[in-house]
Amino acid sequence: MSDSPALSEILERIGPADAEAMRAAEARQMSLTKPPGSLGRLEDVSVQLAGIFGVERPAIRGRAVIVAAGDHGVVAQGVTGYPQAVTAQMVRNFLAGGAAISVMARLAGVRQIVVDAGIAAAGIPDQPGLRNLRIGRGTADMSRGPAMSREQAVRCLEAGAALARELAASGVDLIATGDMGIGNTTASSAIAAAMTGRPPAETTGEGTGRNPEELRHKVAVVGKALEVNAPDPTDPVGVLAKVGGFEIGVLAGVVLGAASERRAVVLDGFISGAAALIAHGLSPAVRDYLIASHRSAEKGHRAVLAHMQLEPLLDLGMRLGEGTGAVLSMGIIESAAACLAGMATFGEAGVSDRPTEGPVAEEARG
Amino acid sequence: MSDSPALSEILERIGPADAEAMRAAEARQMSLTKPPGSLGRLEDVSVQLAGIFGVERPAIRGRAVIVAAGDHGVVAQGVTGYPQAVTAQMVRNFLAGGAAISVMARLAGVRQIVVDAGIAAAGIPDQPGLRNLRIGRGTADMSRGPAMSREQAVRCLEAGAALARELAASGVDLIATGDMGIGNTTASSAIAAAMTGRPPAETTGEGTGRNPEELRHKVAVVGKALEVNAPDPTDPVGVLAKVGGFEIGVLAGVVLGAASERRAVVLDGFISGAAALIAHGLSPAVRDYLIASHRSAEKGHRAVLAHMQLEPLLDLGMRLGEGTGAVLSMGIIESAAACLAGMATFGEAGVSDRPTEGPVAEEARG
Repeated sequence: MSDSPALSEILERIGPADAEAMRAAEARQMSLTKPPGSLGRLEDVSVQLAGIFGVERPAIRGRAVIVAAGDHGVVAQGVTGYPQAVTAQMVRNFLAGGAAISVMARLAGVRQIVVDAGIAAAGIPDQPGLRNLRIGRGTADMSRGPAMSREQAVRCLEAGAALARELAASGVDLIATGDMGIGNTTASSAIAAAMTGRPPAETTGEGTGRNPEELRHKVAVVGKALEVNAPDPTDPVGVLAKVGGFEIGVLAGVVLGAASERRAVVLDGFISGAAALIAHGLSPAVRDYLIASHRSAEKGHRAVLAHMQLEPLLDLGMRLGEGTGAVLSMGIIESAAACLAGMATFGEAGVSDRPTEGPVAEEARG
Repeated sequence: MSDSPALSEILERIGPADAEAMRAAEARQMSLTKPPGSLGRLEDVSVQLAGIFGVERPAIRGRAVIVAAGDHGVVAQGVTGYPQAVTAQMVRNFLAGGAAISVMARLAGVRQIVVDAGIAAAGIPDQPGLRNLRIGRGTADMSRGPAMSREQAVRCLEAGAALARELAASGVDLIATGDMGIGNTTASSAIAAAMTGRPPAETTGEGTGRNPEELRHKVAVVGKALEVNAPDPTDPVGVLAKVGGFEIGVLAGVVLGAASERRAVVLDGFISGAAALIAHGLSPAVRDYLIASHRSAEKGHRAVLAHMQLEPLLDLGMRLGEGTGAVLSMGIIESAAACLAGMATFGEAGVSDRPTEGPVAEEARG
């Protein structure tokens, strides 16, 4: 990466999870008062957190969700059921606390950080709770040329990484990604196709569309964007510039920045997954820091998860974005960490462990 | 039901969920600032809660988990990997706060109520946090005759229902079920086979066993218990008496009591599911009040869920019991209710809804 010294520095700081802490956490799991493995995926998550934070008994302090918003020029091709004005309207809704992510974050005590990464509409005044990173006023139509300049793509990544590092410095250990942007499932489908090598029909779902005809049209638009721009998967910054979005680039930067500070990233659904694909392309080691919160009902998400070999925690048929799946999973992630750190061992609790080897007499098995 | 006037009164009080409140909640979901259906299962749960509480916008006040413990005479047949003493040891662990359920309940702010429904060991002194309902000192060996008397089975149901009604009166709206009992997967497998009509091989899993040989033996023991006792699925009290357990009976009573007070029951895994089968057999209307928290890795749970047509929220490979899956799901259930009650509508937030009918111009779709 020679695009920018700041980005190079972030990428250089990303290392693998702490294998020794993970081994210690695994050993501790075996000593806790439960049959081994009986907490299922929670045990895996707890060991991953140990590796991320570099301690046997991980503790989670602050939690935040970054909801990045941006607009997409490709909406001119009629790929979505909502007007572009909805992006800015929903940002106002986030700030007023009326959106799903706002309700969920409030309930769970998760800090909501709304980011204007590049909304088309003017008129949202600066205010507490809103980060103005505005890289542009909506991307260009990717079906006719690159969505943004390479310089803008780098700025997205740098700004997202800086935000994640700032949160890490303020004690945030779990960073959830969230998105808002009319048209951003179309951009994400193009990114997923470019980064995984799959055809657009496999990475494109209905989004907020309403019928099979709209879906066929959307697949064709994604195909055209790939044809016009010829994104190269070995150049993720180029993929972001050609078929990405400002909010997607900022979230990719958040992933990089969080991994560079050894913080856990809780990925929401399809758009967050597309952002992670960009970050993963730049530094495959980010995978150690990623927790896939849920499997979105949006079709292309499967390809995204498979490419990074991520298995989501939840599968609730959700397809809203905003970070809703990610915040919903945080209680489970916290429980995983709390059990590893806070449960008694067999020895501490005076509970008999079962015999683990040799023939077992009826009495002992009883 | 002529087993007891108290039980008859509870069964008579159980009615269906409030259809009008559910319709109102469904209509409200359509007006909230998100694409219709995009919160997936959360929307279903929110509508179910509206039906349970009888209001368009359900609010959840108190939450509790009832962890019922009991011992099982069938352990004499060598069906489990842990000694019977572990039941009492784990009860002490619950009370000391070192068990998984204790850690999770504390983290989530859920009240933990430990119930001695019939532990074999003496010696746990009365103390705050422990309910002494001790119906007996462990059941008899069901492979040689009935596990308990019919009178004891009725007492289990009455005691569980009374506890649920007491909690409801104190403002608890979500009641999670949890269990502890060495040998209770064997009893639950027998109940599941008896109530669903499936063969023991389909309802029996490894429990805390360690190998295929132990599983084959366990299936044979379940088969023998069914042969010796010939439980009749049209007589659920008889099934409970013949092949049940004290903690299972108490949890079945909790289901009945909660439904009679229009409170939501959050079912844990296989043992809680077996308890729900007894309650469901006595009053099929309880289904409206049941939320299946997770799919247990224990094999027989699938048959239990299928019989009551319940779809679990989580599938995390857990098989611990104690109410851990149930408490883990409570944050999701609360989020479902909070979104329905607290999100802004399109009108309130000034967000454009998408056109829902007629041809859509490119501009409007953009």
